Amino acid sequence: MTLRSEEHFLEIVNDTFPNIHRHMLVGRGDDCAVLSCPEKLCLSSDLFLENVHFRLSYFRPQDVGYKALAVNLSDLAANGAIPLGFNLNLIWPAYLDEGFCRAMLKDMAGLAAMHDLALTGGDLSFGSFLGLGITIWGSSPDGHLLRGKCRPGDILFVAGQLGLARCGLELLERASPDADNYPLSINAHLRPVPLVREAAALSSSGKTMGLMDVSDGLSRDLPRFLAQGTGVEIDASLPVHPEVKSYCASLQEDPLFFTLLGGEDYALLGGCLDGDWPIIKAGLDSAWIVGRVVEKEGIFINGKRINLKGFDHFEK
Amino acid sequence: MTLRSEEHFLEIVNDTFPNIHRHMLVGRGDDCAVLSCPEKLCLSSDLFLENVHFRLSYFRPQDVGYKALAVNLSDLAANGAIPLGFNLNLIWPAYLDEGFCRAMLKDMAGLAAMHDLALTGGDLSFGSFLGLGITIWGSSPDGHLLRGKCRPGDILFVAGQLGLARCGLELLERASPDADNYPLSINAHLRPVPLVREAAALSSSGKTMGLMDVSDGLSRDLPRFLAQGTGVEIDASLPVHPEVKSYCASLQEDPLFFTLLGGEDYALLGGCLDGDWPIIKAGLDSAWIVGRVVEKEGIFINGKRINLKGFDHFEK
Repeated sequence: MTLRSEEHFLEIVNDTFPNIHRHMLVGRGDDCAVLSCPEKLCLSSDLFLENVHFRLSYFRPQDVGYKALAVNLSDLAANGAIPLGFNLNLIWPAYLDEGFCRAMLKDMAGLAAMHDLALTGGDLSFGSFLGLGITIWGSSPDGHLLRGKCRPGDILFVAGQLGLARCGLELLERASPDADNYPLSINAHLRPVPLVREAAALSSSGKTMGLMDVSDGLSRDLPRFLAQGTGVEIDASLPVHPEVKSYCASLQEDPLFFTLLGGEDYALLGGCLDGDWPIIKAGLDSAWIVGRVVEKEGIFINGKRINLKGFDHFEK
Repeated sequence: MTLRSEEHFLEIVNDTFPNIHRHMLVGRGDDCAVLSCPEKLCLSSDLFLENVHFRLSYFRPQDVGYKALAVNLSDLAANGAIPLGFNLNLIWPAYLDEGFCRAMLKDMAGLAAMHDLALTGGDLSFGSFLGLGITIWGSSPDGHLLRGKCRPGDILFVAGQLGLARCGLELLERASPDADNYPLSINAHLRPVPLVREAAALSSSGKTMGLMDVSDGLSRDLPRFLAQGTGVEIDASLPVHPEVKSYCASLQEDPLFFTLLGGEDYALLGGCLDGDWPIIKAGLDSAWIVGRVVEKEGIFINGKRINLKGFDHFEK
């Protein structure tokens, strides 16, 4: 059965998400929610659209709901912020039923509960595909972790895995019978884990000079992280995940390039002074060095410029 | 020329919207904006989608940008809140060009400037139709103007026009050669004026017991405004706009029913004690009485229950 009415949808929402939260003074159901607000507010929005960001041929409804929120959490985390709530704009196509809606919202609510997030409002509209637009808000720390702060000689590091989600995406897109051999890759694409705790650790270390989430692939996101006139010398021995190694071997692709190209990694990219690296590492063991800032724009391996492009919605 | 890249789009955004605002501590261009926040935050989201909420056959690009923001302003105003900023999630189809994008954002920026609103972030994705999802935020007053507060005997009033936007929509949908005779109706549909100033006046009167914006038609929105177990006796002599009268005469429709059915009016619906009506009227001359709360669910005219339905995205 498809959704009968907006009221029917709101019933499902209210069955799934509590309408009480320490930061909600007035809950959902009026023209807008009234929220008890931190002094410094972080706000971020991300779209998650069928056939652009996901396909229903291999995303279960619960994966759609989970991932739509996860990618927003990742954005907020990348600023060292503490997420508190989110609004959901939902575009709903006639071909999906109530069961899909309940399953989708259930895993979204599960992830929200894990991070103590309130659903603070939203909108619903009929449309020709399934689309979720989330705006997430939270409390910003005193020292914002911004981009463009690193200088030549500084260390660039990553928390999380690169390349796995790309590997998963390629396997799923081809409906590869080999997919079972790459469980972590598949999971990295369908259900990325937003590194909220890791970002908070990096933020509270006091030694992280900047942070961003790697969503379009490291090779595309690195230049966005760096100040103008600087580049990066990649550590050619950076860790490549075993599943990526195995996948690249089967296709005779270069695993290092594949890792740098990545996409939808939702890893964290940070920078620190060379001397502070041991402190960063002590605070977050899963962080690893990706390279060093150099005084020349571009991405270099052993001094040689490499040309890689990540994902852009408008480029072919 | 279509948009070349996300960077190209961000260039246009930065050409159009200032990235400095007294409430923006960190502007656009990082993972998320950092905002200096009021103690009580109002947050509201609304979708504005091609072929659901608007058609490009009769919306100019500047009307699309204007109206997408206007309907969000109306939601926030209906809570008596002071709007401060908004995030824009944009779904962009390949068939629109840079000129469309610039024109659309120009009138959105004009309306934003009029209300001193900052564009505080957003997201962009390719998609098969044009879609705008806005989340607006602002400062909530101490006494929130909520729904469900009125009691039998109280007066229900409206600020703004009902029925005009429906009249405009019908003329535009039929591409009626008669449209030139209904300039206010056409404008009410294409460029509704969010009643922010009026809502602030009603809020500061201290006598308004509740407020909401009428977006799905008065007959559908009235029951949402009223407490359970109460209804409304409509003032049968309520003002019907001359354009609505003339339009209904041409189609032999009942102008009162047409006005109550409405849709996308973006008028304000409020309630007050019977004795406070003169104070409301003195503070906002354009307000007018729509009826009185009665102790029986439903909408009544001269004691007789009427059956009208407004707009629901999922009902036929």
